[in-house]
Amino acid sequence: MSKTERPFDEELKDLKEKLLEMASRAEEQIGRAVRSLKDRQQALACEVLEKEQDINRLDIEIDDMAMRLLALRQPLAADLRFITSAMKIGSDLERIGDLAVNIAERTLEMLKFPQLKPLIDIPRMAELAQAMVRDALNAFIAKDAELARNVCQRDDQVDKLNAQIFRELLTFMMEDPETITRAVDLILVGRHLERIADHATNIAEDVIYMVQGKTIKHHVEEGRFTGLKVCNGQDRKT
Amino acid sequence: MSKTERPFDEELKDLKEKLLEMASRAEEQIGRAVRSLKDRQQALACEVLEKEQDINRLDIEIDDMAMRLLALRQPLAADLRFITSAMKIGSDLERIGDLAVNIAERTLEMLKFPQLKPLIDIPRMAELAQAMVRDALNAFIAKDAELARNVCQRDDQVDKLNAQIFRELLTFMMEDPETITRAVDLILVGRHLERIADHATNIAEDVIYMVQGKTIKHHVEEGRFTGLKVCNGQDRKT
Repeated sequence: MSKTERPFDEELKDLKEKLLEMASRAEEQIGRAVRSLKDRQQALACEVLEKEQDINRLDIEIDDMAMRLLALRQPLAADLRFITSAMKIGSDLERIGDLAVNIAERTLEMLKFPQLKPLIDIPRMAELAQAMVRDALNAFIAKDAELARNVCQRDDQVDKLNAQIFRELLTFMMEDPETITRAVDLILVGRHLERIADHATNIAEDVIYMVQGKTIKHHVEEGRFTGLKVCNGQDRKT
Repeated sequence: MSKTERPFDEELKDLKEKLLEMASRAEEQIGRAVRSLKDRQQALACEVLEKEQDINRLDIEIDDMAMRLLALRQPLAADLRFITSAMKIGSDLERIGDLAVNIAERTLEMLKFPQLKPLIDIPRMAELAQAMVRDALNAFIAKDAELARNVCQRDDQVDKLNAQIFRELLTFMMEDPETITRAVDLILVGRHLERIADHATNIAEDVIYMVQGKTIKHHVEEGRFTGLKVCNGQDRKT
């Protein structure tokens, strides 16, 4: 193609590929951060901090591509929704990257002390969150509202696992105040993972909006807003 | 105007007013949630839960208005940036509303137990966060990059106050394990407020982008990304 203008379809494809790359890097960062915590590997935590710049650069590139397409192509209907969704998804992925960095920073703090306990549930929660990010992006690429709904439903499992981790760590602290600092750190890691799953859910909601042209962000029913997420059909948890 | 099509400028003004209304409601929700916690007023916490639907409705309205303007007006340059910024700001305000709800839910939990201590720093942090939200929106309306930068700088104060609250509560827990559950709840409220300030900072960064047409979301320097926020000129905190 060299210097000639690229067809619109190809530009949309570039945007899609850029988002997929960003998602796969964000997913890797989650894995790396939690592995550094589980296996107590400082070098791996530092790697997360170093690699953050790649995700940030992709966020800027995606925003620039989307703005250029909006300005030059003046897209309508489905294309317009695709491009504005891409911008929103980019923001969510960028925040997922930030949360992976938060976990790595928390890990560097925790490595100064002996391990509180072998970690089972936190890596499990990380796997669930990673799969949600992956599937949310697959749903976006395939314009698959069904898969997107499935991602939304899984948010509940992550919330439950986090609540369980939270209760277990409270027990640790009460039985032995020596564990308080480390237990609070792990509680915060649990919350970071829960928020990663929330961002994956936001992406899935955007996909459903893009495909079906209606918002499910806030459940509308009988003319009023219930303030509950349609996704999991129940009250949000803190 | 009745049935005739409104001029583009007026439509932009409508969008602006809708965002201002949403921001003022989000700010009120923060105040209400923290007052319910400080004064132990259950009814006020419930009011926060009820009023969430207003903010969610505004988020949908803003998104719809922005999409309609993009599709029908095919705006360029400054107008395009204004409209995409409005969409992003709407998302941030919606999450600020969610965080106020999280604080109210946490409060309802804490009201089951006696108060741990009179709260001074948390209401102070809430005031700072509210002022940041207010000024970020004022900066948006006035296209005032200077004020937006000032908002970014204040994020640091909120982070410091949160770190101080965190340390104080750790001490409480260590001295008296009876306080653990309530102290952890207050730590989480502190983090919710810190995240509200982060969203205000995101809005301020969007304003700077809108006004100056360049992104400061991720600091670019000497051809590489440092992964640090320009805003506060130092490493992010967890």
